[in-house]
Amino acid sequence: MAWRERIEGLYRRAAENPGTIALGGGFPAPHLFPSDALANSSQRVLHALGDQVLQYDWPEGREDLRAWIATRLTQRGLAVAPEELLVTSGAQQALSIAAEVLLAPGQRIDVDAATYPGALEIFESRGAKPLAYSRPGARALYRMPGLANPTGAVLSADGRKALLAQELPLIEDEAYAELQFAGPPGPPLAAEARDRVWLIGSFSKTLSPGLRVGWLVPPPAAFAQALELKKLQDIQSNGVTQALLMDFLARDDFEARLAHARRYYRAQAERLVEAVRRELPEWTFEVPQGGFSLWLTAPEGGDGVDLLETALAHGVTFDPGRLFQPSGRSRRLALRLCFSGVPAEALGEGARRLAIAWRSYRGRS
Amino acid sequence: MAWRERIEGLYRRAAENPGTIALGGGFPAPHLFPSDALANSSQRVLHALGDQVLQYDWPEGREDLRAWIATRLTQRGLAVAPEELLVTSGAQQALSIAAEVLLAPGQRIDVDAATYPGALEIFESRGAKPLAYSRPGARALYRMPGLANPTGAVLSADGRKALLAQELPLIEDEAYAELQFAGPPGPPLAAEARDRVWLIGSFSKTLSPGLRVGWLVPPPAAFAQALELKKLQDIQSNGVTQALLMDFLARDDFEARLAHARRYYRAQAERLVEAVRRELPEWTFEVPQGGFSLWLTAPEGGDGVDLLETALAHGVTFDPGRLFQPSGRSRRLALRLCFSGVPAEALGEGARRLAIAWRSYRGRS
Repeated sequence: MAWRERIEGLYRRAAENPGTIALGGGFPAPHLFPSDALANSSQRVLHALGDQVLQYDWPEGREDLRAWIATRLTQRGLAVAPEELLVTSGAQQALSIAAEVLLAPGQRIDVDAATYPGALEIFESRGAKPLAYSRPGARALYRMPGLANPTGAVLSADGRKALLAQELPLIEDEAYAELQFAGPPGPPLAAEARDRVWLIGSFSKTLSPGLRVGWLVPPPAAFAQALELKKLQDIQSNGVTQALLMDFLARDDFEARLAHARRYYRAQAERLVEAVRRELPEWTFEVPQGGFSLWLTAPEGGDGVDLLETALAHGVTFDPGRLFQPSGRSRRLALRLCFSGVPAEALGEGARRLAIAWRSYRGRS
Repeated sequence: MAWRERIEGLYRRAAENPGTIALGGGFPAPHLFPSDALANSSQRVLHALGDQVLQYDWPEGREDLRAWIATRLTQRGLAVAPEELLVTSGAQQALSIAAEVLLAPGQRIDVDAATYPGALEIFESRGAKPLAYSRPGARALYRMPGLANPTGAVLSADGRKALLAQELPLIEDEAYAELQFAGPPGPPLAAEARDRVWLIGSFSKTLSPGLRVGWLVPPPAAFAQALELKKLQDIQSNGVTQALLMDFLARDDFEARLAHARRYYRAQAERLVEAVRRELPEWTFEVPQGGFSLWLTAPEGGDGVDLLETALAHGVTFDPGRLFQPSGRSRRLALRLCFSGVPAEALGEGARRLAIAWRSYRGRS
């Protein structure tokens, strides 16, 4: 679609200008990447296990890594065995596999009014129709109950009950669930409806997106089909990365790492909330309960892509809300601001530039 | 399909028995993996570039790696710029992207009478029909002209002309092309029909399959669509792996590495050819011109999966021919024997065990 290409073009222009403050993109804070420990792990596994990790492996992924993931899920109340999940090339691949099994062209999938763009695009590429709260008549649901992108909301107990009451297949995307500011997340919905929930997780937000390691726990009856699709897409996930990750996790205090990340992102969120209240007082948002971003709604209408172009000229970027909004729904001017990947001291200046861009845009339109 | 699952089950059983000689699977020789150099490269890039390679990147891949690939293709007669190709998560992902753009359900794709199983499965999963030499009426062609799996054949000049004369979209899979025993491959067919050839390549056979790095050069008009599909499947390929590969390639004598690999695999092929002629004199095959395998046809009919089960009981495995044969064609009993991943001294014993299994199977059936 032309508007998506235009946004992509603006992002690429922004990336070429190092002075731009990127309040879009959903990037983890790079200083939280454990580069040196991962370097040591990679060297260790390539020296010790080169013949194994550089060779072909089974499509489901390394057994030790699957066991690590299964153990954590079991501790959270979803009792799964390593054999019940697959390692994927990031959460995105898990999503594309779930969508391919669940959705046929023309079918509807019920999503939040603002949700992960990569999911909307996957569903659309299948010929399916992502629609906000489109029941009855939906074939399946897509939600991020543990922590929603872009709103930063954690689904309430009532919301969880209502979701389960629909008794539809559910894609439960936990890409951000470990980053609830309040601490470790509760059980996934999969624990209550194992036979129809496709649970998705990832190391992208907690460790590194560049490693491209995520996982998928399909309903048991769909496991073989999911594994077959995984094999068709890329045969297997990167063997070196899986092994270095496992070596790293076996030595790391991952809980302490998560606790530190939660504290950091919470402080960043507070700074951005304060800056937005000061600079853009007429815009509305919910205070996030975790994740990487705020979801802002404008006091009046407008075109988010035009606003992005104006913002870029003022040295700041954001993610236009349209990316997150399923089609078929009346769109309000909204945007996602990420506090995650920008240094603390740039957040206030970013909000200030955005406010100037907004006034300039309003004055012209 | 049940028979594919049965083969998979037999492969998994074989993998649990270290005494089994695996003449199937298409594995590169592990002693050719440059484990230590890759270990050093991985440590270097994670120490020096951790913030960059662990972060999100663009879906098309690292520019330096694309430039390296583009330079090699240009030297072979296909003048492409880095911007005209994408790094993929192995050749398999490149294939799945090409298939998704080219093929709609019900359409036919013309393939060799024996070809790469992962391609056949991708085409079938799209609802398309891979058929051997099915023109007229095919929507597209899939071929491995530089070096065919499983036959080890290099397409003749006449064969190349005939293929181009069809003026159909062509998926040109060069996964093995660098491993022609005679030396570096000539120009890809893409050089003669850039606007309708989808060129696919990979580091899996020359360096390591575990790294999952391949590439796709789509026709220029299809580049944007291919890039979008890549993004939808997994956002981007592994950033750490791309960087470590680039660091490695910048220091390695890659031509000398390829020359060494060609010599090694040629010697292995000669050993297996000799062993098969001795042990299974009534089976027929063409002497391979490169690659990893021989394609053997039986002197009489039979079921390749049953034969595999018998072979497994005798401590040897192979790849049943049915995996390589498009449906809709009368199937002769055939099989792929790989000389690539097995130590030289095991090839003769593997052929001996297979001959015993064949006699046992024939006696019973």
